Amino acid sequence: MLKLPGLIDPHVHVREPGATHKEDWDTVTQAALAGGITAILAMPNTKPPIFDEATLNLALDAAKAKARCDYGQYIGAGPDNSDIAASLAPKAAGLKMYLDSTFGELRLDDMTLWTPHFEKFPKSAPMVMHSESRTMAAAILFSAIYDHPVHIAHVSLKEEILLIKAAKEKGIKVTCEVCPHHLFMTMPSPPSPLPEGEGRRGEGRTEVRPRLATQEDVDSLWTNLDVIDCFATDHAPHTLEEKDGENPPPGFPGLETILPLLITAVSEKRLSVDDIVQKMYINPRRIFQIPEQTETWVEVDENETYEIKASEQFTRCGWTPFEGWKVKGKVRKVFLRGNIVYEDGKILANAGYGRNIRHI
Amino acid sequence: MLKLPGLIDPHVHVREPGATHKEDWDTVTQAALAGGITAILAMPNTKPPIFDEATLNLALDAAKAKARCDYGQYIGAGPDNSDIAASLAPKAAGLKMYLDSTFGELRLDDMTLWTPHFEKFPKSAPMVMHSESRTMAAAILFSAIYDHPVHIAHVSLKEEILLIKAAKEKGIKVTCEVCPHHLFMTMPSPPSPLPEGEGRRGEGRTEVRPRLATQEDVDSLWTNLDVIDCFATDHAPHTLEEKDGENPPPGFPGLETILPLLITAVSEKRLSVDDIVQKMYINPRRIFQIPEQTETWVEVDENETYEIKASEQFTRCGWTPFEGWKVKGKVRKVFLRGNIVYEDGKILANAGYGRNIRHI
Repeated sequence: MLKLPGLIDPHVHVREPGATHKEDWDTVTQAALAGGITAILAMPNTKPPIFDEATLNLALDAAKAKARCDYGQYIGAGPDNSDIAASLAPKAAGLKMYLDSTFGELRLDDMTLWTPHFEKFPKSAPMVMHSESRTMAAAILFSAIYDHPVHIAHVSLKEEILLIKAAKEKGIKVTCEVCPHHLFMTMPSPPSPLPEGEGRRGEGRTEVRPRLATQEDVDSLWTNLDVIDCFATDHAPHTLEEKDGENPPPGFPGLETILPLLITAVSEKRLSVDDIVQKMYINPRRIFQIPEQTETWVEVDENETYEIKASEQFTRCGWTPFEGWKVKGKVRKVFLRGNIVYEDGKILANAGYGRNIRHI
Repeated sequence: MLKLPGLIDPHVHVREPGATHKEDWDTVTQAALAGGITAILAMPNTKPPIFDEATLNLALDAAKAKARCDYGQYIGAGPDNSDIAASLAPKAAGLKMYLDSTFGELRLDDMTLWTPHFEKFPKSAPMVMHSESRTMAAAILFSAIYDHPVHIAHVSLKEEILLIKAAKEKGIKVTCEVCPHHLFMTMPSPPSPLPEGEGRRGEGRTEVRPRLATQEDVDSLWTNLDVIDCFATDHAPHTLEEKDGENPPPGFPGLETILPLLITAVSEKRLSVDDIVQKMYINPRRIFQIPEQTETWVEVDENETYEIKASEQFTRCGWTPFEGWKVKGKVRKVFLRGNIVYEDGKILANAGYGRNIRHI
């Protein structure tokens, strides 16, 4: 039996407020615990987005009432909320900047809108960038110019990981995370072990941002494991109806599959258990300044082999892009602050047991 | 009578080899002299593009035979010519990297292709970037990481000039140029003093890259004059038939209009004569390491007011986006290496009088 610290996922889309038919603070934290994750950091592109005190309280109130594991809530950077965001930094997981996508209040399409956030957000508080390719390079330049550490979300490309490596060697304060789907899947579609017909994934089920990349990109991530600071899920639940409908929204659930996928890679000698501890506990704790969760650990049967099945998951979205994958490593028990909160498929923590990492 | 040093234009599209119906080394250098410019640096996106020794010699041989003013020839950065380009640096004006556009052999759409050029091109040799917005930020990050000075071509946006300012303040070795059309025109179309009908510019005549920008962008360039190292024309001649046809190619001629436009701005107290000397002589000489042209100067009647007319120009392309503009400041005489090479509308230098700035 493998004993791991409580793992931390710095990139989770909770969907509450605004889209609780996909997920909410109750189901997402159940999925986290079932996956061996005892703290999640929630993204701000909800409906409404989290960009001021009222919306931050909306999310934190829901979390306080429902969360079964610990949590933090990002505030989103908008075109004119730099003062408010900076003032809310002590209550937030960090500042999330959407530099490639456009999300209503969180639009930042002109680089002049980045500057006030880099100038005002507290130097010690985490800033996370959705920034791909050249935009990522621009974000790293801002980090160098304004001397503010940045964390690059969901790195997926060779050009990205190599540039982060070069920037780190130059002493620029950049960290990054990589998601399992970018480590284990390639474009244009994830491998499917299912037969034609019932259960076969549609095209929409391969839609994710950043997109799945080439084998050369995937290989570059594995070759540069030492450049990767964190593994994160970018857990982004949508219902199967949405994924299989017209205009399928991009995103994969991931909280319940990240650990078995990584343990399987350990069994294949592509990774070590220490890598998992570094990138899902030690590094995220340091980067996101997460206090220690005392008497918290995860027990994993590293030899149990099984098939991933959406029907056994706690996420509300009802599917997984890894359906049918044979993996190794089953979470048996999770302890959080001295209490057993998960055991063999059963959630034992009550709604509301989770705490805000900024209040622990 | 105003006496200026021989001016330098670091950004000229000569069109030879490959498109001499638009312009060639003879007509472009006549246009330069008529504009008070005694040295031009020629861009490499010709047909064929200049990317190895054979193509560099093709351009330099044509220049040697035809040029009436001094010149340099850029070599273009391609996906696999970093060794060759570096070895040709002593013969070239510098390395031009097309980071936003795609030009056959000069394609660099993946940032991994930028790295070998930054690593190998001699540290003291000029590197010029066609890079807009975030791509420009990425180029500046490469400059910082690989400790190689970069020169940003045709800056047009507020977000660009402000980021260059911030990068300079941080000590990053970045310089930049701005073109007259981005200083004096706004989107979507240049002002036209001509009546409907004959002579009226079509939509194609406003096409230029980078595009004409907003009044706010234009104002930001004027507000940050001290951040601008060079004025350059990006002289990009196309025939009127091409500009008025379907799929009009982007680009404006500019060699014969830059000086009167800037002198007019001096007369309006928006600029000083010293600014012109700094940004068209002292700074380009330093940035591009151009040796002194001895006994070389330009005499300008700074009080003569006249109307810009394409019919009086030497460029082969036969039009100007500034047709009909009333300007102040007429070039009367140009001396190059002790000889008078232009006087009152007449080119007095022979073809072949011009010299390669790397051989002076």
